[in-house]
Amino acid sequence: MRIGELSRKTGVPVPTIKYYVREGLLPPGELTSPNQANYDEAHERRLQLIRALLDVGGMKVAEIADVLKAIDDPARPLHKVLGAAADRLGTAGTEHDDTESAAAHAVVADLISRRGWQAHESNPAAADLSKAIAAMARLGHGAFVEVLDDYADAAEQVARADLAYVDRRVAVEGMVETVVIGTVLGEAVFSALRRLAHVDASAKLYGTEGPPERNAN
Amino acid sequence: MRIGELSRKTGVPVPTIKYYVREGLLPPGELTSPNQANYDEAHERRLQLIRALLDVGGMKVAEIADVLKAIDDPARPLHKVLGAAADRLGTAGTEHDDTESAAAHAVVADLISRRGWQAHESNPAAADLSKAIAAMARLGHGAFVEVLDDYADAAEQVARADLAYVDRRVAVEGMVETVVIGTVLGEAVFSALRRLAHVDASAKLYGTEGPPERNAN
Repeated sequence: MRIGELSRKTGVPVPTIKYYVREGLLPPGELTSPNQANYDEAHERRLQLIRALLDVGGMKVAEIADVLKAIDDPARPLHKVLGAAADRLGTAGTEHDDTESAAAHAVVADLISRRGWQAHESNPAAADLSKAIAAMARLGHGAFVEVLDDYADAAEQVARADLAYVDRRVAVEGMVETVVIGTVLGEAVFSALRRLAHVDASAKLYGTEGPPERNAN
Repeated sequence: MRIGELSRKTGVPVPTIKYYVREGLLPPGELTSPNQANYDEAHERRLQLIRALLDVGGMKVAEIADVLKAIDDPARPLHKVLGAAADRLGTAGTEHDDTESAAAHAVVADLISRRGWQAHESNPAAADLSKAIAAMARLGHGAFVEVLDDYADAAEQVARADLAYVDRRVAVEGMVETVVIGTVLGEAVFSALRRLAHVDASAKLYGTEGPPERNAN
């Protein structure tokens, strides 16, 4: 198909498609004449993936380029691609070296061992978790650790659902791409559901979900 | 205390503290001489909050300025402040107007009614949810909706834990600030836990959490 049709099918403007090609996110179309290129379904699908990671996953163009490069490189092992996708969900910045930080590390190590999780406390996600817990403690919310097991129960349930889904779909789609989509878009899905559940819980607790002008947004 | 001590206590470099004051994130210290200012515990706490939203919550300086302005304005109702905090977790960009989008809206409306959630489908979180579901459908992952109830169960559990926590702490801390911290930092906590639970679930399913070099990161 021509670039115009690709644009219509995906809702992505032609200049944006050209920008993605320049940035290496989208492979160039096959030239049929010096100034006309042909695009196929692979281009259409790749564009959908780019838009999803951008619009729903909130990723930056450079981050998407990294993840796509990892997806396209068959020599790259799955956990490396996953790393590229998961790391961008992680937090940057250096860690404090204070009491709260040491206490948070102990809380996370204890959680992992108590739940029998086969994950090492040196895992980047464990580091992000201690950072968040330490930040809360510095703000006077050390008691938040009391609800950590409720959070962990919920996280286990989501992870089981994710793995079951990937397991079922692995024959149909590329495993690597599925895992990237699940990691990034699944995060957006859960975030939206948590906010909806908050609205519901507040309504049941306080009898209102807030004035109408807020909900009409 | 002097700015140097404030810096030592919070781990935030002096030039960064000055930058936050210039940007209106941190109130200026009380001038004790033409070039010396005095800072107190309120400054220390505010700095901790800024760093938490920045480092753990991944918020931008301008977004933090908005949220802090909302926290500081007693005339601003709670749900408006919450809106400022929650909306930044939402996704930007316009929605497609296609089959997948219409189907996703129906899925979300059905989910809300089936679960008896007191939340309107015009809520921004509901819109974000349909956007994520529609994006997955466009990528051939329409079957993801089959695990949506597992996600919703988990989201309800987290929301219940959050509300119970806020309810318990409301006398001790400012309600508004607590809710902002819970919304933004709670998101980071769950995200890290989900990634850890993935590592565990993979290890139990596939017998490995990946080669050591990945875990040593």
